[in-house]
Amino acid sequence: MSVTSHDVARLAGVSQATVSRALRGDARVTTETQARVKDAAQALGYVRNELGRGLSTRATHRVALVAELQNTLYHQLMLPIHDELLARDYRMVLLAERGDDAALHERLLDRSVDGAILMTTRLNSSLPLELARRNLPFVFLNRVGAFVDAPSVSADNVGGARAVGELLLGLGHTRIGAIVGPADTSTGRDREVGFRSALDNAGVVLPPKLLVRRDYDETSGRLGLQEMFATGKPPTAVFCANDFIAIGVLNRAIEMGLSVPGDIAVVGFDDIDMAAWPAFELTTVRNPLKEMATRAAGKLVELIESPGTTDHDVFATKLVLRKTHGG
Amino acid sequence: MSVTSHDVARLAGVSQATVSRALRGDARVTTETQARVKDAAQALGYVRNELGRGLSTRATHRVALVAELQNTLYHQLMLPIHDELLARDYRMVLLAERGDDAALHERLLDRSVDGAILMTTRLNSSLPLELARRNLPFVFLNRVGAFVDAPSVSADNVGGARAVGELLLGLGHTRIGAIVGPADTSTGRDREVGFRSALDNAGVVLPPKLLVRRDYDETSGRLGLQEMFATGKPPTAVFCANDFIAIGVLNRAIEMGLSVPGDIAVVGFDDIDMAAWPAFELTTVRNPLKEMATRAAGKLVELIESPGTTDHDVFATKLVLRKTHGG
Repeated sequence: MSVTSHDVARLAGVSQATVSRALRGDARVTTETQARVKDAAQALGYVRNELGRGLSTRATHRVALVAELQNTLYHQLMLPIHDELLARDYRMVLLAERGDDAALHERLLDRSVDGAILMTTRLNSSLPLELARRNLPFVFLNRVGAFVDAPSVSADNVGGARAVGELLLGLGHTRIGAIVGPADTSTGRDREVGFRSALDNAGVVLPPKLLVRRDYDETSGRLGLQEMFATGKPPTAVFCANDFIAIGVLNRAIEMGLSVPGDIAVVGFDDIDMAAWPAFELTTVRNPLKEMATRAAGKLVELIESPGTTDHDVFATKLVLRKTHGG
Repeated sequence: MSVTSHDVARLAGVSQATVSRALRGDARVTTETQARVKDAAQALGYVRNELGRGLSTRATHRVALVAELQNTLYHQLMLPIHDELLARDYRMVLLAERGDDAALHERLLDRSVDGAILMTTRLNSSLPLELARRNLPFVFLNRVGAFVDAPSVSADNVGGARAVGELLLGLGHTRIGAIVGPADTSTGRDREVGFRSALDNAGVVLPPKLLVRRDYDETSGRLGLQEMFATGKPPTAVFCANDFIAIGVLNRAIEMGLSVPGDIAVVGFDDIDMAAWPAFELTTVRNPLKEMATRAAGKLVELIESPGTTDHDVFATKLVLRKTHGG
């Protein structure tokens, strides 16, 4: 005969509801009672049955994290999201996104999850529309979509990129290139807008041949630098819309025998861990990704448990000056 | 009234079982029939209910991936595992492991998943024992546990590390250091054993002060190199039990003004993508992690669907010679 929460309740001398709360780590149950219930559950070999729980409450206590897994920037966001969800008694199902994929939509809408965090949304993606239409709660993290006004957690990408433009202009550069991200992402769009606004304000032109639009990866930096030098009139500084692109530029500069920042100044965006490595010493814009990830996970759980208003959290960014900008 | 698979079957002119198979992408259903069923499902707005499915079959079609998420080596294994599971109609639940954690055991054993892939097992972990006792199918990937003989997919760590020892000896080094991984991991143990065996065979001693045992991260490399130089009799070559450690050594060498390989030769293990970057040009041992990940996912699904024998797949490793070994 299998052990039920009723047996645990009897042994611990509490109600069944308290057993359930105690095993979830609910703060309404005192630490002492939680310990007593856990001891009783262990003594009886009781394990909560999630399948049964899904049935009785119509909720799965599972949340999908939708991401382009080939984009390594997002890997460092998984742990904060996982931990925040765990603290709130939710689990994380990881779904890889590759463009607009009907199978992914189906996997989100078959009632196997209570909500979703969308980390790598493209502006023209139909997924947010579909989720809104089917009333599945979701939160945009880092990137937002264009068609649906949903709760979001993002950084001040325009302001961060404008600060890079102002930094390079202040150092006296007048021929500046940019390797920006995909035009169909909000981060790609906003970082380009911010950077251009700094140049526009100073009356400096961004030559079309020195604007390279590519994916957010290391290869883009290598190819971008090569293209700019192939024009015959290379820039003296380059803004890269993320750190992987910037590291690709640094790698290609080594191969081409260029000195950074002597021959070319380089600035990235995000401040991933390796930006600070002595091999790179990359000047960049700090994007508080971990804090944003934690906020997004909390926000989604609140949305699932008590549907509320659609608000947008925008985190400030800040320049981190290391060596590659010169000056 | 909600749409059922019966309605889809009627519209597509097939049986209900065929609807279910077609929507799963089961190869027993022809492509034409799959398309017809999917069109019918779309026309009716039918979405499979995973919660119901779990109930009727007593299976969740979910698999847990258990990993130390702070160890970035494992991030690149997620996508191949995700894709292989998806192709076999399974989803991936990601669970973070931090030592021997009772909450993790519970989350694996509450029938919310059909099986597990253990990527970052410690030799003395009780989790594999617990899973075996409760009959939850699982596969060891990369690292194996010490107490349970379970199906595993790993690399020839002993052979790979022995090849590094032979390489450095062949280049004339006689004072060689090693920064190895945690002693309570099978990879840490086996890479040390392999490396030592090469030195032993050549009658070369590994001085205790030149053996540093640390975590598998970049910081370990920095601190390890520093410790070896603090002895006053530094090595002329160092074997690092993974590439993150080796990159930490390269970073610290830059800070200390040491030339690599001139002042010190460095060899890593794994051949992660960045080992090939011009900033590093790291000589290392290729560990076919992606192929191993795909194999482990397939193996687990086979184990879930038809419990079989306990076999161990060991993938060959191979030296990748770039610049940091000298020679």
